[in-house]
Amino acid sequence: MNTVIVGLGVIGGSFAMGLKRIGRGPVSAIDTNRDTLQKALDQGLIAAGDGDGSALLKAADLVILCIYPHSVPGFLNAHRDDFKPGCLLTDVTGVKSALAEELKGLLPTGVDFVLGHPMAGREKMGFDFASDAVFRGANYLLCPLLQTKEEHLRLVEELALELGFRRVRRISPQLHDELIAHTSQLPHAMAVALINSDRKGRETGQFIGDSYRDLTRIAKINASLWSELFLSNKEALLAAMEDFSAQFSLLKEAIRREDKDALRALFESSTTRREKLDE
Amino acid sequence: MNTVIVGLGVIGGSFAMGLKRIGRGPVSAIDTNRDTLQKALDQGLIAAGDGDGSALLKAADLVILCIYPHSVPGFLNAHRDDFKPGCLLTDVTGVKSALAEELKGLLPTGVDFVLGHPMAGREKMGFDFASDAVFRGANYLLCPLLQTKEEHLRLVEELALELGFRRVRRISPQLHDELIAHTSQLPHAMAVALINSDRKGRETGQFIGDSYRDLTRIAKINASLWSELFLSNKEALLAAMEDFSAQFSLLKEAIRREDKDALRALFESSTTRREKLDE
Repeated sequence: MNTVIVGLGVIGGSFAMGLKRIGRGPVSAIDTNRDTLQKALDQGLIAAGDGDGSALLKAADLVILCIYPHSVPGFLNAHRDDFKPGCLLTDVTGVKSALAEELKGLLPTGVDFVLGHPMAGREKMGFDFASDAVFRGANYLLCPLLQTKEEHLRLVEELALELGFRRVRRISPQLHDELIAHTSQLPHAMAVALINSDRKGRETGQFIGDSYRDLTRIAKINASLWSELFLSNKEALLAAMEDFSAQFSLLKEAIRREDKDALRALFESSTTRREKLDE
Repeated sequence: MNTVIVGLGVIGGSFAMGLKRIGRGPVSAIDTNRDTLQKALDQGLIAAGDGDGSALLKAADLVILCIYPHSVPGFLNAHRDDFKPGCLLTDVTGVKSALAEELKGLLPTGVDFVLGHPMAGREKMGFDFASDAVFRGANYLLCPLLQTKEEHLRLVEELALELGFRRVRRISPQLHDELIAHTSQLPHAMAVALINSDRKGRETGQFIGDSYRDLTRIAKINASLWSELFLSNKEALLAAMEDFSAQFSLLKEAIRREDKDALRALFESSTTRREKLDE
């Protein structure tokens, strides 16, 4: 299976490493950064690299798009005549409904697309921080579209499990985006707001425990990518943020009223729900 | 140095383990639970255990109070004639201003008190989950009062470092409580609100990444202890919560307006501030 990775950033690079590890070659890559391509060639991760890549795409059975969400439609448009009939495209972006909508009419006949979301990443960006170790034990979500072929869904599933992902689930783009709003985007928003709400001039770092460190790790964030992800999931994210704010207000009100029973009840609820999460 | 630990819960038990490991004996313990005392005796962690403990206190050079914050004044009152002149008391509770206030007039002459806060803990409670491994690398805060003797502050500092704490800092009870509101209580409130804001019936656990798991771990919370801690730090905690809400609203507003530049600026600020935290 001839695979082309588009975009050798932290995720694209991790895919290149993982595909090499499991012996799924040959892999080539398209990236606008020549140095990155050279590094990947030197490390034996790719067999060929190119800045434009039309020639590489013409021979590709599988194309893994590891570029920014807003670049996907443009890339498809620019290369619509380059895809081999029967080839499969898949992406890794974190929001799905908007892309599912944009794909309509963009796919050449005979080209299939599996919307995919490997729920693994790092706080750092760029090829130098790529590591397929982040895949191990993580979840991989697929959002089948009406026209997506079952054999192609199975192919990505198989690949994901071989790469070390623990579980591959299929859900609708809408449910995906609602869940991601709650489980990923909202936590990032919380971490950003937490660290931004620290009073300046305090040596906070000298006085923190693990929980603060854990909670704020994701406040180190790729500003370009995440502002894009937030805005492309506007409605679901705002709803999740409002739900959170309502619960946060319940805590504030209980403290303001010095209502110990109300506080205890909220803590007991969160304890039970968190325990259920680990089941 | 004859040490008595009052309360063999998860923290008291961890102190017993740590003191044994570093060879600072003999250690005895006061606990209302006979089974717990027996376990600690069986494990060779304590030389003696008692439910009331007046006799043990009379021989104690150092008393480590590992009981709930609200129980500290009552304990001091009940045992005011039991403390040996020159003995040192220290506590481990997470809020300091209220206790500093309550201590006035409660300490018998010749008895000193070092307000201490080992910033280490576990999500589980009780002796069975005690482990002095949680001390390793953690911060220990001391809040000297006007009458606290320098030699006693040094003694607790020394002990903390021997037990594996990385850093012991001295700060005022007021600053302690402000910092703790931001770095510990607020994160707990956020985690509780996050998990309580999940829509019921969704199989959220099937779709989460590490960040959600990390962020919500502390939503498994000792409801009795934390409702007490929250209320005893009411003003500082509400202020920290309001600061957070203001920052969270900035994010919400930027998303609502689809203001990508504003979002980017907030993310860039959090990234810079989080990087500074690790320095």
